[in-house]
Amino acid sequence: MTTLPATVFEKIIAGQLPADIVYKDDRVTAFRDIHPRAPTHILIVPNKVIATTDDIADGDEALIGHLVTVARDLARQEGIAKNGYRLIINCREHGGQEVYHLHIHLLGGRPLGPMVTDSPAGA
Amino acid sequence: MTTLPATVFEKIIAGQLPADIVYKDDRVTAFRDIHPRAPTHILIVPNKVIATTDDIADGDEALIGHLVTVARDLARQEGIAKNGYRLIINCREHGGQEVYHLHIHLLGGRPLGPMVTDSPAGA
Repeated sequence: MTTLPATVFEKIIAGQLPADIVYKDDRVTAFRDIHPRAPTHILIVPNKVIATTDDIADGDEALIGHLVTVARDLARQEGIAKNGYRLIINCREHGGQEVYHLHIHLLGGRPLGPMVTDSPAGA
Repeated sequence: MTTLPATVFEKIIAGQLPADIVYKDDRVTAFRDIHPRAPTHILIVPNKVIATTDDIADGDEALIGHLVTVARDLARQEGIAKNGYRLIINCREHGGQEVYHLHIHLLGGRPLGPMVTDSPAGA
């Protein structure tokens, strides 16, 4: 067990911080991003703490797959499945990860443009 | 079973098209994107055909989780795990999906910038 301070996501999962929760089961919680980057922007997170993608254990594969099927179902519920959407997991600094509790971004409701912006070096 | 024409990814998995394959097992194949958007840009795909995220079955959860742990391992192999990276699954038109065979983009090797570009309307 970690002794690091709880992230905001742990507090949301525990009901200690308010959030617009759109789905919850015994393994997963999903809530709307407070700074939406698209008309639909939902975060799907495991209830147990996994800090980053690099911290996923092999035994977590079914849990990670479940995060994705929850995202699939939420996209249908939001009415964005037919037009399409994007799922993103940012890992650490280069990925732009802001909260160190694994989360999938579900983004949709408009065409989302390029996957990554070009670097000055063009790579 | 579908009778749609095979996508390029099916042909790569079957060994009928050349690709820079970096990992393969009985469930998953991974190869470098031919139009890399970052210093590391690898596609991780299930060997069986799943067209889009919306076509994932509940019984595929372990397979989808396995795609992610393969991405995790490839990131370590590429030396980008410590600095970080981004995993992206594009679904259909608004996501910008180009090949209708589910694939995870593993992008890294530089800071990747914003997750999505702003729309003209700012949303």
